[in-house]
Amino acid sequence: MTAAAPENSSPIGVIAGGGVMPFAVADSLKARGHGPVLFALKGVCDPVAIERFRHHWITVGQYGRMTKLLRAEKCKDLIFIGTLVRPALSEIRLDWGTLRVMGRIWSAFRGGDDHLLSGVGRLFEQEGFRLLGVKDAAPDLLMPEGNVTHAAADQNALADIARGREVLGALSPFDIGQAVVVIDGHVVGVEGVEGTDELLRRIAELRKGGRIRAPAGHGVLVKTPKSTQDLRYDLPTVGSRTIEGAAAAGLSGVAVAAGNTIVADAQAMIEAADAAGLFVTGLRF
Amino acid sequence: MTAAAPENSSPIGVIAGGGVMPFAVADSLKARGHGPVLFALKGVCDPVAIERFRHHWITVGQYGRMTKLLRAEKCKDLIFIGTLVRPALSEIRLDWGTLRVMGRIWSAFRGGDDHLLSGVGRLFEQEGFRLLGVKDAAPDLLMPEGNVTHAAADQNALADIARGREVLGALSPFDIGQAVVVIDGHVVGVEGVEGTDELLRRIAELRKGGRIRAPAGHGVLVKTPKSTQDLRYDLPTVGSRTIEGAAAAGLSGVAVAAGNTIVADAQAMIEAADAAGLFVTGLRF
Repeated sequence: MTAAAPENSSPIGVIAGGGVMPFAVADSLKARGHGPVLFALKGVCDPVAIERFRHHWITVGQYGRMTKLLRAEKCKDLIFIGTLVRPALSEIRLDWGTLRVMGRIWSAFRGGDDHLLSGVGRLFEQEGFRLLGVKDAAPDLLMPEGNVTHAAADQNALADIARGREVLGALSPFDIGQAVVVIDGHVVGVEGVEGTDELLRRIAELRKGGRIRAPAGHGVLVKTPKSTQDLRYDLPTVGSRTIEGAAAAGLSGVAVAAGNTIVADAQAMIEAADAAGLFVTGLRF
Repeated sequence: MTAAAPENSSPIGVIAGGGVMPFAVADSLKARGHGPVLFALKGVCDPVAIERFRHHWITVGQYGRMTKLLRAEKCKDLIFIGTLVRPALSEIRLDWGTLRVMGRIWSAFRGGDDHLLSGVGRLFEQEGFRLLGVKDAAPDLLMPEGNVTHAAADQNALADIARGREVLGALSPFDIGQAVVVIDGHVVGVEGVEGTDELLRRIAELRKGGRIRAPAGHGVLVKTPKSTQDLRYDLPTVGSRTIEGAAAAGLSGVAVAAGNTIVADAQAMIEAADAAGLFVTGLRF
């Protein structure tokens, strides 16, 4: 799935959705001498943060304009990064370049979110562009193996992590959000499209309401990529917000897939975890 | 798992938790000439509705008192029915009969909720009582096979139902709440300990917030028993509240396991579904 390391000679196109990740990737590229050019998606990409970088504004559906701009900027490699709420068809502005490939986009739309992104990605590949993942473009943003916090998983947490991995393994073929909360061996919550923050909020509520009786400090959030996921487009992400949610849910820690999980801001995340006494650990898969 | 039909000669003990189900079961028994004696769990069983029936008040943990009362009432068969929030250990009043079997209760406590009930059930079986399920005691309360509504599942809904069954099959070994929402082939929500009503509320929110874009009238709630579940203790239940939740979530209908799902009040449920244009269907397993 992973492409080779990006070429030093040509700048890298960063198709930038919402959140902080596009800028973290762009900074990482810059630091390693790969001049990034950002293609900021209107309505989702942060218009203030983008100013620090060479950029163009685009809208979803401007496939023709995109390929022209990428060629003009001499970008051979590109990366899709940042959040992207699945657009309503009515919001999409189609240009002629897009209409030409509409059939293929349409079939991508009808699959899961993964298929949408990988379907669009495939179109660019057919035009000769090379798609990079965070693994290629900014490997320093990935979770390492083992503990990154003062706290570590105890026997109870290790058993919960093992249980969580089993459940995620069973769910993996189904293109579902890949996180679960396991407390003392019980699977108390499974993530759907609502996302990890909402899953953790729910667990906090259930604990407050007495539906979950286990003492605080028991339980683990386990988060892994789906096996159906193209890891270039859609790695799971954790950050200090995940830690805040896990702490509010009374968990002992967070376990994610080492090498296949993006840490939004590692320093902030580790500080938040250490302050709350939570562990954060990267699992070998 | 199912016991034989209850004996006509002796009354049936109904250990009555919260909700309307204990009274529905008691009415069903009465109608078929099995005099029920209710053992109402303090704090959860409805103190008004119980007045219509011969009853005793008990608290969780009064195992010794329970077995004495059951023998005094000549109940050989008994059924556990109604909601029961997992009690905190500190809330349980233990009597000597309970303390004698505490080791076994304690190990039941450490499993999932299913194990708690089936563990306690096993104690009664060891004393010579026979445990009935709703299947034995009140088969008229179970969902039949096929549609019970005017509306029926279309091709789209049938595909969503098939997908839902696959996911529930994969989750079945893990002792997790057994319901999912599938919309146009995407699994958008998985039930954990929060229950079906909360799952449906979440889907309604996600639709309102635009995170789920599919038009209203697409999507299905699929609900089945766990394969690990002892069907005498803990059948999935649906009712008019399920229908209201499914309608608010913009779904087209509800599919449950025929013969293994309790319908809390069939007439109210079907009226609610027909009014909302939803289908309710019993699946053959």
